[in-house]
Amino acid sequence: MSGSTFGHLFCVTNFGESHGPAIGCVIDGCPPGMALSEADIQPDLDRRRPGTSRHVTQRNEPDQVEILSGVYEGLTTGTPIALLIRNTDQRSKDYGNILDTFRPGHADYTYWRKYGLRDPRGGGRSSARMTAPMVAAGAVAKKWLHEAHGTTFTGWMSALGEIDIPHEDETQIPLNPFFAPNAGIVERLEAYMDALRKAGDSVGARIEVRARGVPVGLGEPLYDKLDADIAHAMMGINAVKGVEIGAGFASVAQRGSEHGDGLTPAGFASNHAGGVLGGISTGQELVVSLAIKPTSSIRSPKPSINRAGEPTVVETFGRHDPCVGIRATPIAEAMLALVVMDHALRHRAQCGDVQLPIAPIAPIAPI
Amino acid sequence: MSGSTFGHLFCVTNFGESHGPAIGCVIDGCPPGMALSEADIQPDLDRRRPGTSRHVTQRNEPDQVEILSGVYEGLTTGTPIALLIRNTDQRSKDYGNILDTFRPGHADYTYWRKYGLRDPRGGGRSSARMTAPMVAAGAVAKKWLHEAHGTTFTGWMSALGEIDIPHEDETQIPLNPFFAPNAGIVERLEAYMDALRKAGDSVGARIEVRARGVPVGLGEPLYDKLDADIAHAMMGINAVKGVEIGAGFASVAQRGSEHGDGLTPAGFASNHAGGVLGGISTGQELVVSLAIKPTSSIRSPKPSINRAGEPTVVETFGRHDPCVGIRATPIAEAMLALVVMDHALRHRAQCGDVQLPIAPIAPIAPI
Amino acid sequence: MSGSTFGHLFCVTNFGESHGPAIGCVIDGCPPGMALSEADIQPDLDRRRPGTSRHVTQRNEPDQVEILSGVYEGLTTGTPIALLIRNTDQRSKDYGNILDTFRPGHADYTYWRKYGLRDPRGGGRSSARMTAPMVAAGAVAKKWLHEAHGTTFTGWMSALGEIDIPHEDETQIPLNPFFAPNAGIVERLEAYMDALRKAGDSVGARIEVRARGVPVGLGEPLYDKLDADIAHAMMGINAVKGVEIGAGFASVAQRGSEHGDGLTPAGFASNHAGGVLGGISTGQELVVSLAIKPTSSIRSPKPSINRAGEPTVVETFGRHDPCVGIRATPIAEAMLALVVMDHALRHRAQCGDVQLPIAPIAPIAPI
Amino acid sequence: MSGSTFGHLFCVTNFGESHGPAIGCVIDGCPPGMALSEADIQPDLDRRRPGTSRHVTQRNEPDQVEILSGVYEGLTTGTPIALLIRNTDQRSKDYGNILDTFRPGHADYTYWRKYGLRDPRGGGRSSARMTAPMVAAGAVAKKWLHEAHGTTFTGWMSALGEIDIPHEDETQIPLNPFFAPNAGIVERLEAYMDALRKAGDSVGARIEVRARGVPVGLGEPLYDKLDADIAHAMMGINAVKGVEIGAGFASVAQRGSEHGDGLTPAGFASNHAGGVLGGISTGQELVVSLAIKPTSSIRSPKPSINRAGEPTVVETFGRHDPCVGIRATPIAEAMLALVVMDHALRHRAQCGDVQLPIAPIAPIAPI
Repeated sequence: MSGSTFGHLFCVTNFGESHGPAIGCVIDGCPPGMALSEADIQPDLDRRRPGTSRHVTQRNEPDQVEILSGVYEGLTTGTPIALLIRNTDQRSKDYGNILDTFRPGHADYTYWRKYGLRDPRGGGRSSARMTAPMVAAGAVAKKWLHEAHGTTFTGWMSALGEIDIPHEDETQIPLNPFFAPNAGIVERLEAYMDALRKAGDSVGARIEVRARGVPVGLGEPLYDKLDADIAHAMMGINAVKGVEIGAGFASVAQRGSEHGDGLTPAGFASNHAGGVLGGISTGQELVVSLAIKPTSSIRSPKPSINRAGEPTVVETFGRHDPCVGIRATPIAEAMLALVVMDHALRHRAQCGDVQLPIAPIAPIAPI
Repeated sequence: MSGSTFGHLFCVTNFGESHGPAIGCVIDGCPPGMALSEADIQPDLDRRRPGTSRHVTQRNEPDQVEILSGVYEGLTTGTPIALLIRNTDQRSKDYGNILDTFRPGHADYTYWRKYGLRDPRGGGRSSARMTAPMVAAGAVAKKWLHEAHGTTFTGWMSALGEIDIPHEDETQIPLNPFFAPNAGIVERLEAYMDALRKAGDSVGARIEVRARGVPVGLGEPLYDKLDADIAHAMMGINAVKGVEIGAGFASVAQRGSEHGDGLTPAGFASNHAGGVLGGISTGQELVVSLAIKPTSSIRSPKPSINRAGEPTVVETFGRHDPCVGIRATPIAEAMLALVVMDHALRHRAQCGDVQLPIAPIAPIAPI
Repeated sequence: MSGSTFGHLFCVTNFGESHGPAIGCVIDGCPPGMALSEADIQPDLDRRRPGTSRHVTQRNEPDQVEILSGVYEGLTTGTPIALLIRNTDQRSKDYGNILDTFRPGHADYTYWRKYGLRDPRGGGRSSARMTAPMVAAGAVAKKWLHEAHGTTFTGWMSALGEIDIPHEDETQIPLNPFFAPNAGIVERLEAYMDALRKAGDSVGARIEVRARGVPVGLGEPLYDKLDADIAHAMMGINAVKGVEIGAGFASVAQRGSEHGDGLTPAGFASNHAGGVLGGISTGQELVVSLAIKPTSSIRSPKPSINRAGEPTVVETFGRHDPCVGIRATPIAEAMLALVVMDHALRHRAQCGDVQLPIAPIAPIAPI
Repeated sequence: MSGSTFGHLFCVTNFGESHGPAIGCVIDGCPPGMALSEADIQPDLDRRRPGTSRHVTQRNEPDQVEILSGVYEGLTTGTPIALLIRNTDQRSKDYGNILDTFRPGHADYTYWRKYGLRDPRGGGRSSARMTAPMVAAGAVAKKWLHEAHGTTFTGWMSALGEIDIPHEDETQIPLNPFFAPNAGIVERLEAYMDALRKAGDSVGARIEVRARGVPVGLGEPLYDKLDADIAHAMMGINAVKGVEIGAGFASVAQRGSEHGDGLTPAGFASNHAGGVLGGISTGQELVVSLAIKPTSSIRSPKPSINRAGEPTVVETFGRHDPCVGIRATPIAEAMLALVVMDHALRHRAQCGDVQLPIAPIAPIAPI
């Protein structure tokens, strides 16, 4: 029941703090016989890595992953795969002034009240740095799902602050620092971020993630519904404040005659459900949307208190992302992959490969 | 790893189907020595019960709960508390026509593909009826949390379809069939529902839930953050398509200078966080919002396919809620209570009762 | 993490007390599509039932099981299977005198210290009656394993007190009240028990259980080794004080040249391992042996204390088995079946149906 | 549900293989605020370390532990504690000849059948080397239990092959290579081992472990009884074939009038129960006994088969313990500490610190 373990059959146990010696994870339950090396994991880590553009934190770490176990002669053995990432750029002096005070919007206060002490270096375990092992584990899940089922995971930014980013061309996603599926809007996003940084402020973002080629039948009736587990995974990412599946909050004002996706011999006629009905995958795209709050660490001074309960003012000088949402895309993909992977194994455990009397209904285009 | 078990230390295992002999749950991990009888549980079940107004399903069942174990001479003994609710009104003839077809928006198709067979009577396990045991278990958690910490749980409807319901007066909630905290709007809601029912259609809703008096320090850094577990619980309720904590999706367009809640000696100056920072409770109100999709069972015919993959048209004649959101309020309260209860015990396990050097900061008013 | 749940994928949650309204369990994770009715479960319950001979407790209960959920038209649906057994013969007056005192060898003292209160009626939850739901759940596991893999489970008594019972003929097991695989010894066992009952005393027993036709490859390298989980299951049966796998304690004095089972093209040459190597099944018989302590409830007065810590003397007058080991055989079979079932599903989750390049090595005769 | 994770609230996730880059574990759930450094862990690792006498494997590794996370300024923070031990002496050439054959008594065959492939270097994950992280995690548990409750853990060897080792003087345990509580017998044990090594054979052993100062009330009624979890932990140690609690297999021939431990105002009058009644600790010593099989790797040639199923003969030349039982003592202590620790936290979660109306009954001397 380890709180730091994600998943029930594809179990990822995460460890580390922002400025400790190392961070990493242990993946237990990976099927044996899959080719795996660091080269399968590093690309996703590089997508999440800080210091890749002027719009993200300038902390500069290679985030080089080392596989410590579970792989023999290039193949997974079925035993735990431990992944290690050494912390190399730990300028803890940057954080000295926050030891005694609680930064608004941060976990300083809650960690201190929970544990009676806290590691103030770079936010300790509450740092977004802890998402690096999630991304690493997600890369392993992605690989297996792709090889076994052809499943793919694609995320992008759909809004930066008040700017909506129309979904136009997914091939653009890796070509700009915002993971925007839209080349035309990048200049505007750059200008927006520059102004924000100049103002010493930060802003939120909205991220979309899709899984395509998801097998039908994944998820439990309750409580471990596929969508419930997706919500758990997504809300567990740092700074996420909202999660939607399919039509999401728009479904509040929809009529049943509109929302319910009709079935045709060629597949579903729409996907308001977002790929899940009754907690179980339909085989359509999984459609997930996340709200990410603005970075809490901003240069502008904010009122706070110290450990004695006295009023004080907090200013933060460290290297921070002015929009944590920018680097959230590979994280959201990874977490979605972990959920699908876990349910793929759960399904196999209980149902094996159920034979059905009719041809599978083809999933069709997203909403 | 039972998918039908909710919680890690206050574990609720749910069983049953809409038209089987009985539904119920087993609660394992309840602290010993708490006074408990059916009278503590029945009121919440009655709030969720069908047939209480013309706006909800006319299925008429008393949903009488029986405690089968775990209580001796009126006190919990610390051993599993089994709760049983017999199904009494099972008009399965109503559902005969759907055995061979898949109702759009329902779990018919996914259950069939997952398991290779399904119980078509009243939706089987995918029925909203399965929320009754959740409500029963939630009542036990609410009682313990209230006695131990003074925690309370309050939910209401904040939107019915396109009608926003302003939060005005919580004492009104039990006085109208919509759980609306607003007496003035009830007539309009009644008219709206009557028109909808006449049209044979259904609509979505938005529900708010608040927990007040939540201890500080509940939740794990990752992955079992308090907000992640809330999202899991809420998205696991039938028909929920979106979950927000605190500012939710509004935080996308917020600046960090606005979103981060300042701390003062008297407490937090705002609650955009919704009572959770870094996955751990701040002691402020937990602020949770849910999007509930429109009922999938509507009288209007919808295109679908049968098990042979041939096109057909589905009409549903059973007794259904035209807005499943109406009865969702006590369910959302119950699930929130189960999450808080579980984390209260988890906190006690790891941290005991941590003594802190300053007076607790008073939680203040919600956003 | 419910303490009352057994298994990770085939999860059995047990509830009830000896003299409460009912006992039972919820099985979550059973594969769908298996034919199942009460008639598949009742025979094993009848084997465990009290009152079947003069050598076991005279409490007389039919232990009639009712399936409450998870079965539709005679087939498992993949959703939780709730099993209910009403308590019908609850002479709680028999137990009134023990409310204030702690019976030696019983859980009275530990329950009271743990929970601060206890249900004294018939031992409450510590009663051997709680093994009835285990037997019921085990019957479901046995059926699936037999249909899927041809696995069978056979238990017998191998020692009653100081009398060893040679393993001669397993067809005799159901023909005598001792589950003895040996017709010639029954008369001696009857006389032994009669003398014991006359003396108001009780005695221990040794039980053997075998699983045959176990698939190769079940079990995790660590910590959830197949043998570790068997030990957990067996030591969790009431009154068990020791567990052996294969050669067990005899292996202490063995040489490696003798203990290690040689492999031949036709199978293993011996089975000192008891069917498990490195925590993983070999495909040979699982060989398990249990030590069961003498019943603690005896007529002879014993020194004890009361809740005030004052000395007192305890006499027990209820209806008790003079040898709890007699009825332990079906319980041990059931628990072994639950372990194998759980690992069969775990194996399928991670490894699917691994194809191996050589013909499977035939398991051969037991030690 | 990770098979490689031990414990429910004090969760230890183990990773690594004998000849991979590193082994280690992640401890999640450790209470915050405890002083902890490598110096608290290393001594137990050194007790388990190979190469310390001529009677154990000559593999020479320092087994230096590094704390990677979860400790800040010398105190546990409540977040996961990752422990890393680099493998330094990996002479894998020693093992080349076993890639294609299955060593009798080893896990070669079962790993290969389970996973379809295996890491043959030093036994891979089935190596006794994997107990080093268990010992490291156990040291953390021991420290917390000692500080919180004064609990101590002591193990010793009680039989080496057919030689019984009388329990005389526990201060002798660290003074001889056998963990024998008896100075007078050491010379005989040395001679016995020398002869065995000369003969190229191996032998089993019997280990005793005791926990003293265990709080009353630890353990769940079922299935996670304290003794069931102890059995799981002990049987999960490499080479263990039998586990006893208290009187163990001797209870088979005992009478109830003898076995049931009487209670007196000064404590229990005996401890046949071994410190557990009804699955819950009595506050007396936990009395645990293990049977350890002879090392499977012996120099004498043994018949086996290769992967093609053809007969072959296996000779092992690596560096092996002629009695794996010798180094098992610190491992058994560690696993017992992990079980007690986990249940101490579980108890606190559910029951807090129950106040009882009478003075605690003093535990008294062991059997």
